[in-house]
Amino acid sequence: MNFLEAAEQAARQAGALLRENFETTIEVDEALHHDLKIALDKESQDLITRILLDSFPDHAIYGEEGLAGNQDSDYQWIVDPIDGTVNFYYGIPHYCVSIALRHKEDLILGVIYDPSMDELWTVEKGGKPYLNGREISISPRTKLEESILFVGCGKTEEALETGLERFKRASLRARKMRMMGSAALGMAYIACGRLDAYVESRISLWDIAAGQLLLEAAGGTTQLSPKEGESDVWSIVASNGKIPIDEIL
Amino acid sequence: MNFLEAAEQAARQAGALLRENFETTIEVDEALHHDLKIALDKESQDLITRILLDSFPDHAIYGEEGLAGNQDSDYQWIVDPIDGTVNFYYGIPHYCVSIALRHKEDLILGVIYDPSMDELWTVEKGGKPYLNGREISISPRTKLEESILFVGCGKTEEALETGLERFKRASLRARKMRMMGSAALGMAYIACGRLDAYVESRISLWDIAAGQLLLEAAGGTTQLSPKEGESDVWSIVASNGKIPIDEIL
Repeated sequence: MNFLEAAEQAARQAGALLRENFETTIEVDEALHHDLKIALDKESQDLITRILLDSFPDHAIYGEEGLAGNQDSDYQWIVDPIDGTVNFYYGIPHYCVSIALRHKEDLILGVIYDPSMDELWTVEKGGKPYLNGREISISPRTKLEESILFVGCGKTEEALETGLERFKRASLRARKMRMMGSAALGMAYIACGRLDAYVESRISLWDIAAGQLLLEAAGGTTQLSPKEGESDVWSIVASNGKIPIDEIL
Repeated sequence: MNFLEAAEQAARQAGALLRENFETTIEVDEALHHDLKIALDKESQDLITRILLDSFPDHAIYGEEGLAGNQDSDYQWIVDPIDGTVNFYYGIPHYCVSIALRHKEDLILGVIYDPSMDELWTVEKGGKPYLNGREISISPRTKLEESILFVGCGKTEEALETGLERFKRASLRARKMRMMGSAALGMAYIACGRLDAYVESRISLWDIAAGQLLLEAAGGTTQLSPKEGESDVWSIVASNGKIPIDEIL
């Protein structure tokens, strides 16, 4: 198996696991619920890890649920075993598996799989971006007034003050606002022209690594700024590169 | 055919029409796009109208795309041929068909169909609410802190000022905020426990009539307040009836 085949297989198998467990976990009580959640996040990452390390035993795994493999490797797989976790556990069919591969400092591969819709986005560095094998590209929209924006507001009171001002500016300018609950799917949706921008103040690499490579291959842009004093926490501004997103920041 | 069979058939056939045209309309230019939109909204409503009036030629149709049938009838079908229109035309797979039946002042039937997920919600007055034939109910959640809220902000600057203050209060209290873009699916999602509340300042009857009957049968509550001086414009507060939604209004 090559890198892309392994990533696709891992994403599809983890996705199948999640689909099988979708809406079975929401009828249990809150305490057990919490345990099930931890168990399934971990089970999904373990499955992905097993598939990737079977093919590439010397690679590193860096996932939301922890590390595995050889952490000194030049090849690092960046794994989110469930992106849109709250959606998943509340029964909202909008969540995904996100897997990226980094060689030294460069992202070289990205795969995002939405089990509810059976949609698989794939990209390799220097290649074209695909959704279910069909080439995709960003929207042609150039005006905020025709665009749909996904603008997160953060959760802390401080982040909320800044975020809400931005959300207000965005709401006044954009055609529509959306908060769907999955960063990786937000990036994938911009890459195939369904959304026009995604702005969020706190994300981690596993949320957006695959989406970043996908979006850039599709003609869009991503700016990441590290949060000072915190490890792997970033603010992100991603867009189709055509709308004047700076005007609402 | 009885009322429910006719409504299901109409919703499924209109849904199939929309599914066939999904993502085919998004690659045309903006001017043609606008015409296609009008054509498909109308085509969907015409299909629904034909199916309903074939079985019940003396009934009235009240839809987003206009009136048909006998407007003096005691039976009035309330039709939204595409709810989540912007999602549909931007390629976001989250939209639906909503059909309700009113006898004099009483809602007696509601059907909501999501073609992307092949999810059909059905309810008859006095009966149980179903999703794809399985009985559903609202979430058991009682705290804002564990809930997911769908709070619209409106679009005018005035509505936005009020809406954003509410959105801020909600964001500080709720576990998560969602703006998915379909009022009818928002109501259906509360009815089956995926969301906990929906608050919006401007909706029409066709957006929420089916959802209201569904939600009330599932144990939730809906409050509608008419906008003074406007015909069929309402503000809505819908919830599982358990979380203290008044605290964020």
